[in-house]
Amino acid sequence: MPLKVWQHLLKKGTQILRESNLKQFPKISSVSSVGGGPIGGGWAAHFLAKGLKVKSYLHDKNEEKLFLNIVESAWQSLMQIGLKKNASLNNLEITYDLEHALSGTDFVQESIPEVLSIKQQFYKSIDTLLDEKIVIASSTSGLMISDITKKCQTAFRAVVGHPFNPPYLLPLVEIVAGEKTKPEVIAWTEGFYGYFDKVPIVLKKEIPGFIATRLQEALWREALHMVKNDEATPEQIDLALINGPAPRMAIQGQCMAFHVACGEGGMATNLDQFGPALELPWTRLKAPELDQVLRDKMVKGCNEMAGSKTFQELVADRDKAIVGILKSLKN
Amino acid sequence: MPLKVWQHLLKKGTQILRESNLKQFPKISSVSSVGGGPIGGGWAAHFLAKGLKVKSYLHDKNEEKLFLNIVESAWQSLMQIGLKKNASLNNLEITYDLEHALSGTDFVQESIPEVLSIKQQFYKSIDTLLDEKIVIASSTSGLMISDITKKCQTAFRAVVGHPFNPPYLLPLVEIVAGEKTKPEVIAWTEGFYGYFDKVPIVLKKEIPGFIATRLQEALWREALHMVKNDEATPEQIDLALINGPAPRMAIQGQCMAFHVACGEGGMATNLDQFGPALELPWTRLKAPELDQVLRDKMVKGCNEMAGSKTFQELVADRDKAIVGILKSLKN
Repeated sequence: MPLKVWQHLLKKGTQILRESNLKQFPKISSVSSVGGGPIGGGWAAHFLAKGLKVKSYLHDKNEEKLFLNIVESAWQSLMQIGLKKNASLNNLEITYDLEHALSGTDFVQESIPEVLSIKQQFYKSIDTLLDEKIVIASSTSGLMISDITKKCQTAFRAVVGHPFNPPYLLPLVEIVAGEKTKPEVIAWTEGFYGYFDKVPIVLKKEIPGFIATRLQEALWREALHMVKNDEATPEQIDLALINGPAPRMAIQGQCMAFHVACGEGGMATNLDQFGPALELPWTRLKAPELDQVLRDKMVKGCNEMAGSKTFQELVADRDKAIVGILKSLKN
Repeated sequence: MPLKVWQHLLKKGTQILRESNLKQFPKISSVSSVGGGPIGGGWAAHFLAKGLKVKSYLHDKNEEKLFLNIVESAWQSLMQIGLKKNASLNNLEITYDLEHALSGTDFVQESIPEVLSIKQQFYKSIDTLLDEKIVIASSTSGLMISDITKKCQTAFRAVVGHPFNPPYLLPLVEIVAGEKTKPEVIAWTEGFYGYFDKVPIVLKKEIPGFIATRLQEALWREALHMVKNDEATPEQIDLALINGPAPRMAIQGQCMAFHVACGEGGMATNLDQFGPALELPWTRLKAPELDQVLRDKMVKGCNEMAGSKTFQELVADRDKAIVGILKSLKN
């Protein structure tokens, strides 16, 4: 039986686009993945599993063994998840010739080192090497595509397409436009990722760290503070996350988790009841002022996610998913 | 096949204690749960599932219907997880008489409203109503037990025992001593929770918010900032968490996730490579200075968690668990 809350979140933003793009995306047959690390290798494995031909550009012959390890190890998991028709590791071509890697491709995923100057140099080179009709997405975890493409003449077809590690398993891809990115490039990229079974989120603004990295980074910095102050060990931090918020967060994000935790009153009750706790020193991060506008945005957003589900149904969906996750982890 | 990393984390701090306390804890037959909300009801359901008799104290007859809903709904999930011998809903007694609720009990879990003055008043009343040999644990999400027991003469047997919602499913319990809590009370409480299938973590210091709430609160405040600034909607925040960090975090906390993401070099590589990113505005939370002492604590902590596992084994464990979680969520 499908978990409707999760399905709703999963499908939102992908299903609609997928339907409107049914004619366009099935014609895509080959993509390029630039970079031989865990992210570049992970993307290559993902696209191969979707039945695509993949040209992977590596910088150096020495990277090849590690790269193939990554792809082959990912393939074990992807076989469990389910391969698309014609999916095969034989559709992978490794090349050390960037011009060849970028020629005749339908899409480029860039996953080179997270150093602004290296990225800028690379994006400058695509002006001549990559057909300007082809979209290129950067796997950057937090740099802005406007900065990355500063020396590039064809910035209009460049976006951030930020996956989460491991990129062959976790569905999230954050799409962020730069100042010069064309709106139709954003729409195409969202449709493309969605068609190939990712869950794309298009950001409303270009902010460093995007959404997921910002959330993770806040948690991570608080963790570092705690270790620094001998308030917790790394093991206690991991134990707390694994046995506390994480299994729930895999079915309900923090907003819906708080919405449902507060009974019928939902997020409104949460904010009214725990609003004062935002002033407490429960993290080193100062909270924004909880004014009426913010309260309304949170409440409206949660009510929309809940849709027609009753509180009891939301609890039942959550608990069924957590039971499944806990049983799956124990096996 | 057991997922050893997770099993290691799960068992650490519980298995050893469980073995050393094999004689003591099986004799426990009845506990008291104070409070009729989702936490009090959730605790009652947990203890009932472990085969214990539970006296639940409710403040008001009007709470009874909602309370029973919580317990009965939790029971559906607990039956899936597995009930202990003799576990039965018939072992639940609801009472409105606090003295009766606290008499002849082996342990008290307090889950009354999160208001310091109400908690203080309650802990004052236990001086005369609860045998001073009996441990009482507070479900408070972030208040300090030293503050809660300020007016109490028997603070030495009081601790924080903070669960994560839903408390009948999520294994975490954070144990925090107050200034007056006896060390043997902490040890007993850790053993007690561990014996009854929770994953207890004993905090080294009494800090507001403990570990899990602090981590969650940092993430939550960053989320509120993003919604306030129209950088993300609540739905985008939840989508990002559900499809990004959460499934991985259910098997690897943030420390091990970064340790394994960085290949053979582990956390040392992570800190050396991404250390500069701690200065970037990827969250509103300022990071601590990454000096040698902090670096060593993080690296040592992760190496200890990894134990004798190779990088490849850690990746394989992680991916197998994520595949299981994703498949479980899709069913």
